[in-house]
Amino acid sequence: MAKRIGTSTIAFDRPPYITSHAAVVGTKEGNGPLKGTFDLVSSDTHFGQKTWELAEARMQRLAIDKAVQKAGLSTNDLDLILSGDLLNQCVSSSLASVSTGVPFAGLYGACSTMAEGLALGACLFDGGAADTLLAAASSHFCSAERQYRFPLAYGGQRTPTAQWTATAAGAAVLSAAQSKVRITHAVLGRMVDMGVKDANNMGAAMAPSAYDTLSRLFRDLGAAPTDFDRILTGDLARAGGDLLAELFRRDGVDITPTYGDCGSMLYNPSQDVHAGGSGCGCSAAVLCGHILREMEAGRLKRVVLAGTGALMSPISLQQGQSIAGVCHAVVLEGV
Amino acid sequence: MAKRIGTSTIAFDRPPYITSHAAVVGTKEGNGPLKGTFDLVSSDTHFGQKTWELAEARMQRLAIDKAVQKAGLSTNDLDLILSGDLLNQCVSSSLASVSTGVPFAGLYGACSTMAEGLALGACLFDGGAADTLLAAASSHFCSAERQYRFPLAYGGQRTPTAQWTATAAGAAVLSAAQSKVRITHAVLGRMVDMGVKDANNMGAAMAPSAYDTLSRLFRDLGAAPTDFDRILTGDLARAGGDLLAELFRRDGVDITPTYGDCGSMLYNPSQDVHAGGSGCGCSAAVLCGHILREMEAGRLKRVVLAGTGALMSPISLQQGQSIAGVCHAVVLEGV
Repeated sequence: MAKRIGTSTIAFDRPPYITSHAAVVGTKEGNGPLKGTFDLVSSDTHFGQKTWELAEARMQRLAIDKAVQKAGLSTNDLDLILSGDLLNQCVSSSLASVSTGVPFAGLYGACSTMAEGLALGACLFDGGAADTLLAAASSHFCSAERQYRFPLAYGGQRTPTAQWTATAAGAAVLSAAQSKVRITHAVLGRMVDMGVKDANNMGAAMAPSAYDTLSRLFRDLGAAPTDFDRILTGDLARAGGDLLAELFRRDGVDITPTYGDCGSMLYNPSQDVHAGGSGCGCSAAVLCGHILREMEAGRLKRVVLAGTGALMSPISLQQGQSIAGVCHAVVLEGV
Repeated sequence: MAKRIGTSTIAFDRPPYITSHAAVVGTKEGNGPLKGTFDLVSSDTHFGQKTWELAEARMQRLAIDKAVQKAGLSTNDLDLILSGDLLNQCVSSSLASVSTGVPFAGLYGACSTMAEGLALGACLFDGGAADTLLAAASSHFCSAERQYRFPLAYGGQRTPTAQWTATAAGAAVLSAAQSKVRITHAVLGRMVDMGVKDANNMGAAMAPSAYDTLSRLFRDLGAAPTDFDRILTGDLARAGGDLLAELFRRDGVDITPTYGDCGSMLYNPSQDVHAGGSGCGCSAAVLCGHILREMEAGRLKRVVLAGTGALMSPISLQQGQSIAGVCHAVVLEGV
């Protein structure tokens, strides 16, 4: 049975292994600095489908199938899929999993979805509710851009703080089958709303929630940032990441030696993504590609993934509501 | 620790109590046959807010606050809120909870959301990940109608199989604090897609998933439908409910003596809702109003709530995709 530590941290008694994982991305992401860490880079942004929504669903399904296959399993072996995305009614996630025949619990955590799924999934495994389950998340530049901002062909100008929605998906199988990484702790985060209303500055909207969740985690564990090989947010990008470092600096804490952000890591500055990447698939693919491979190679031993989500809709923004951030975190330890 | 029984059922070792519950509805719902079972009936469909989205958020928050108050708690005592709704990016749920300061995990299960939250919440309680948590869901006719169908003033004709989105919210606190009802079992359901593409016949799209989940539950428990005082779906309404009964009839099983559907129960036929009610708030309010009161009064001892959701979006329908149904179930037992 899990134990609650301090105000906010869940410590697992039977920490699940990340038995396998897979990341599938588009061409732009495959040309970035993390090239070579993904299971599949598609040269076809449509993933062979007629619509962007189906393209995203197909990409998520490819990540799910690959993760399941790498675990030596079939989808029949899964007790549950926890997944979500940015689209209205999370439709690419349901389209991705509908033909698997696996029990399906839809999540909505915006860009924090992968961390939310890993946190809830680890709780369900630890508590005996599921023995083998999968967490997944995806985003697609073309489905998101049209839904949130402008028609794709419009060519709207972007501000320097704007983020680029990644065409990416990640999936991870949690089970008792041994691997080199376990999820040992989780924090389900509170929403923090500091009044940011600029949809082109999501990093600023989410940084305070990342600070809130990470501060709680460090306090609950009695840990310093330096006790982790990598503190990873996903996705504050450069603008939000700088703000997060500043918030910790005010406490006299320097997180920068081990801090990284999935949105800042996915692209090269020359790729014209302004502040960096975003989208549920960004942290999912950076984790399930680069980070878990680094852990498996022994180059990272203890990592915290703090998934950050901007909880808003185009309608809520048009109506003048501010953007609440939320941040769910999981601690990953090499074994 | 929970045990998995048969193919699909989770049996709780420490079944959480539904320590308290609250339902808040609009005027139309308050004039229906379940009048008198709700904690608050608002005569103002706007709930004092400027937009329908904020109205729905306010209604969900009223249900959350009332449930917390009835448990003798404050929101500070909650370890987690699990909630969701039908709106794009589940925005009324995040707006409802943002100022509570409570950890928040967003769910998307369409009209199955309340059952999804209760099922996941019971797993988290049983596994020690949360000691006191709240599950909530809401829907509002005016926010949903505009988003899914027509402008409110348009006055479009509705087909006989169409359902009416309930203006309703429900919230339930799960904890170890004793009450008269516990959640003893849960099934997280698989998606079933039988090719229905008619957004005005959601009952038909969801009935096969309700059949799938309920059949699995009965098989796993070795139970007959008559072992339950009430088998409750939410929301198949009349068209879908008839189909569900027919699917069981083909197995030689008659569920009709104890079967009821939240969408069919919420309104009188004279209220012009065609097949009946729908929306995340419908089953949430019927459960947190009528059903739990009946259980507390001892008139119902063993109830299964099978929440049904139609996993689609207006865009996926316009693109020709069919509607997958999903059904999550929880078994409620009087103590």
